[in-house]
Amino acid sequence: MFNRVAIIGLGLIGGSMGLALRQAKAVQQVIGYDLGKGVSEHAKKVGAIDEAWHTLSDTVRGADLVIIATPVGAVRVLLQQIAGELTPGTVVTDVASTKAQVIKWAEELLPASVAFVGGHPMTGKELSGVDAADGALFQRCIYCLTPTESTSPTAITNVSALVETLGARVRFLAPLEHDRQVAGVSHLPFLTSVALVNTVASDETWGEAALLAANGFRDASRLAAGSPEMYRDICLTNSETITGWLDTYIATLTTLRRQIASRDRDLADTFVQAQQLRLQWHASREES
Amino acid sequence: MFNRVAIIGLGLIGGSMGLALRQAKAVQQVIGYDLGKGVSEHAKKVGAIDEAWHTLSDTVRGADLVIIATPVGAVRVLLQQIAGELTPGTVVTDVASTKAQVIKWAEELLPASVAFVGGHPMTGKELSGVDAADGALFQRCIYCLTPTESTSPTAITNVSALVETLGARVRFLAPLEHDRQVAGVSHLPFLTSVALVNTVASDETWGEAALLAANGFRDASRLAAGSPEMYRDICLTNSETITGWLDTYIATLTTLRRQIASRDRDLADTFVQAQQLRLQWHASREES
Repeated sequence: MFNRVAIIGLGLIGGSMGLALRQAKAVQQVIGYDLGKGVSEHAKKVGAIDEAWHTLSDTVRGADLVIIATPVGAVRVLLQQIAGELTPGTVVTDVASTKAQVIKWAEELLPASVAFVGGHPMTGKELSGVDAADGALFQRCIYCLTPTESTSPTAITNVSALVETLGARVRFLAPLEHDRQVAGVSHLPFLTSVALVNTVASDETWGEAALLAANGFRDASRLAAGSPEMYRDICLTNSETITGWLDTYIATLTTLRRQIASRDRDLADTFVQAQQLRLQWHASREES
Repeated sequence: MFNRVAIIGLGLIGGSMGLALRQAKAVQQVIGYDLGKGVSEHAKKVGAIDEAWHTLSDTVRGADLVIIATPVGAVRVLLQQIAGELTPGTVVTDVASTKAQVIKWAEELLPASVAFVGGHPMTGKELSGVDAADGALFQRCIYCLTPTESTSPTAITNVSALVETLGARVRFLAPLEHDRQVAGVSHLPFLTSVALVNTVASDETWGEAALLAANGFRDASRLAAGSPEMYRDICLTNSETITGWLDTYIATLTTLRRQIASRDRDLADTFVQAQQLRLQWHASREES
């Protein structure tokens, strides 16, 4: 499959990939690089990588797979920096939550001798950094791959096989289709959570009310603890799709508000609809 | 404290109270009543009550504590029905999520010989019904009591002691203050979750997108599985406060939408604010 894998960006996802690949003994060597001071040494100490190298060119030279696991905002510059250093035949993949923009950059910047396969593991934690890394993070998760018509079939096959050694399940999607679906099930939930926290916890009653907040608030607000930089980059690179979802969400809330203000007993129908949809999703998930 | 406790409504909360009281051997006898066919017999079988009686008058007669654990929409009629059957000196409490309206009904309907102490345990599950009941449900949770100036001090003391035997921590609040704070930390999160599910899971992409929904969607949507009738009643009895919170929430989302549409890099500040507030709340909760 691959002998030498270079991971650029040793945060939660990059670190977890290193751990998972090393635990599965799926590749001969994992090289890591991170801009943060001491991060790559720490990643080596916790077993996420075999070697920490200190320049991008050293890191990618001789690697037959390069995994870019930085926030999406850093991807464009990174592609520019590594483009001239990659050995012909190298496969490059990423883990960013938005794919159309990343693929556009890759097609524009990488040489034709190199294959790019966009990737996105549907997993995470509200914690970030290599200390939160976990070799089991990808077990049973869906891992989207978004090859295009010009992507080399061999590269697709090899990246798919690698994803499966992480314990994840591959799902192929067109980039724009991916971006729209992920905006609904992942980016929008983050924004609903951020708005909830900024609404309730900025209120003058919060000092007291915080004591009453229980498991419902805990779950509805959990995503708001996610990495601000990562989500900013997601919003900047998937802006149109996300604002479309926000418009529908705000319209749904406005209808709900009207029902509540007019003490409309049909409110229960709205709540039954949500309950049924949620229970169906949960049941289908338990099955799979 | 109390010898004979009558619980009206044997759902998640009523059933869990019965289990907790019986497990703690805190009272001599727990009598249960539920309108649902076979529910009280089932509650007896799972150990939530000692006896199931089939009329309200039998249930409350001779009880020195009556706990109304029905959806708030049923409380008014129930108070009317039991008002003439209560032994003088009986204490009545409830567990509804809105307090000002319930207290108004109690003051209007109950005889002066009976004390009413409004209560609200800050706990729950997305499941409902006596099968989801759990004697440990109240362990370490905050349990609001909302006595008024006219509430008998002895009744307050005895209900507080009972709450502590459930393993919960008493918090006294004025009814309106309670309703405003709980609307923010509990009712609003439910509505954000309902709107999320009704937005995303009604979309034409849902068949595919449902497969990509992971832990973030799971948590942000969990509350939407809650009882539609219970939440309808909450919205109908706390309508003004809830619409006030919804207005602030929609305004917060509208600002976020504008920032995303204009690709405003200050988005990260908005996300940092939410992250900090969420982490602070979580840390203070772990400490307590």
